[in-house]
Amino acid sequence: MKNMNKTEFAEGTFDELYGHKILELKENHIRTEVKISPILHQPMGLVHGGLYASMAEAAISYAAYFTTEGVWVGVNNNTDFLKSSKEGSLVCEASPIKLGKRSQIWEAKIYNGDTLCAISKVRLSNLDA
Amino acid sequence: MKNMNKTEFAEGTFDELYGHKILELKENHIRTEVKISPILHQPMGLVHGGLYASMAEAAISYAAYFTTEGVWVGVNNNTDFLKSSKEGSLVCEASPIKLGKRSQIWEAKIYNGDTLCAISKVRLSNLDA
Amino acid sequence: MKNMNKTEFAEGTFDELYGHKILELKENHIRTEVKISPILHQPMGLVHGGLYASMAEAAISYAAYFTTEGVWVGVNNNTDFLKSSKEGSLVCEASPIKLGKRSQIWEAKIYNGDTLCAISKVRLSNLDA
Amino acid sequence: MKNMNKTEFAEGTFDELYGHKILELKENHIRTEVKISPILHQPMGLVHGGLYASMAEAAISYAAYFTTEGVWVGVNNNTDFLKSSKEGSLVCEASPIKLGKRSQIWEAKIYNGDTLCAISKVRLSNLDA
Repeated sequence: MKNMNKTEFAEGTFDELYGHKILELKENHIRTEVKISPILHQPMGLVHGGLYASMAEAAISYAAYFTTEGVWVGVNNNTDFLKSSKEGSLVCEASPIKLGKRSQIWEAKIYNGDTLCAISKVRLSNLDA
Repeated sequence: MKNMNKTEFAEGTFDELYGHKILELKENHIRTEVKISPILHQPMGLVHGGLYASMAEAAISYAAYFTTEGVWVGVNNNTDFLKSSKEGSLVCEASPIKLGKRSQIWEAKIYNGDTLCAISKVRLSNLDA
Repeated sequence: MKNMNKTEFAEGTFDELYGHKILELKENHIRTEVKISPILHQPMGLVHGGLYASMAEAAISYAAYFTTEGVWVGVNNNTDFLKSSKEGSLVCEASPIKLGKRSQIWEAKIYNGDTLCAISKVRLSNLDA
Repeated sequence: MKNMNKTEFAEGTFDELYGHKILELKENHIRTEVKISPILHQPMGLVHGGLYASMAEAAISYAAYFTTEGVWVGVNNNTDFLKSSKEGSLVCEASPIKLGKRSQIWEAKIYNGDTLCAISKVRLSNLDA
């Protein structure tokens, strides 16, 4: 694992703006959270689709940064929206499908309580390769 | 076109939080903008991948809402990140690939000046169908 | 389950052409197989990428047809190629991520022995809806 | 352009099995064709979804092989099925979205006459990189 402080990591970034927090981080697994407030809605009063994609993108990038070798950058984010949310808390759990030298693929599942709200696959590319 | 005011549409929503503005909206076309500031970065100092996905998701949802019949909700967002950005302004241009009764597919291209930074395909489903 | 005979189902179709057989089919699960021969290769001597996409598409369509209500048609197939194959046998295992009224999403994993070669997500739309 | 003979290139491969022919190939563009026969159908009598994915995968791989430097392999194939086909001829036209050193992204559109039947995005990775 790299040395950067996980609490201060996202200070002043987009993740701080939308309230994205790391709950748990270990090899092959990350769990993050965003507490829903109306400012995260789209105009119909539901959580904005971009928020799910953002959570998956960031959680997976963090996990790759902190738990694997190399400098990784997201090249594709494919998010399916399964169930809408209005309030409560979104928890994102991600784990790898493939950890290669040139590319990594991770999958994130985003829950509101027991309900699976979105599923997202993120492809990362190794800038060192 | 529906009656809602395009300027006030996004007030108090996630799009306002990240500064997403509609520049132009007509049948089969929408153009939107986000001015980049450091609060939209990820920890490496580049625009957060989730921002591109959010712009595409919202621009396309707005275009479907204002220019087509029915109540449409995003069911998939597939975004490729082509070129990173640090500063300047991101302009999103979207147009439809397919406008069906049950589903719509739109493609968004997000530019920073002349540079194509991201390309995104969003699938919408008709809640009335 | 519907009444059609699973053995004769694919006679005279593309699945017969590339040798696609159902091994096991039950609620929320299908397992199929293709034995690799050189005619399934691309010019570099590896199994053609389209074969993995075809297996996933067909296995998931079969499973939806035989185990759920409604007439379902594939609208998106998103396949990641993880590891190439030359010989042996490809086994596809698929199960649902979401079984809704208007749409279904299934995931297929295609193995050659213990090696995960491809992973595929297929979205189906209900023609009756 | 590389030296291999484009007519003999696909002999004895999956592309020959399903009748895939190159019509035109030049920098940044390929056009290929498959004449539809019942053996390319799925059990409902429509062209098998896997065929569209196969055409896109192969056409784009051919184009990368013949018109760009490096050894490229498909890592993702994302195909949307827009309109079903029963008979006639499918023509696939592909051109690049991004031609990078490590990765290429191409888009294929598959037509039956004037009707756009499928659209497919294929990501290639450079094995030399």
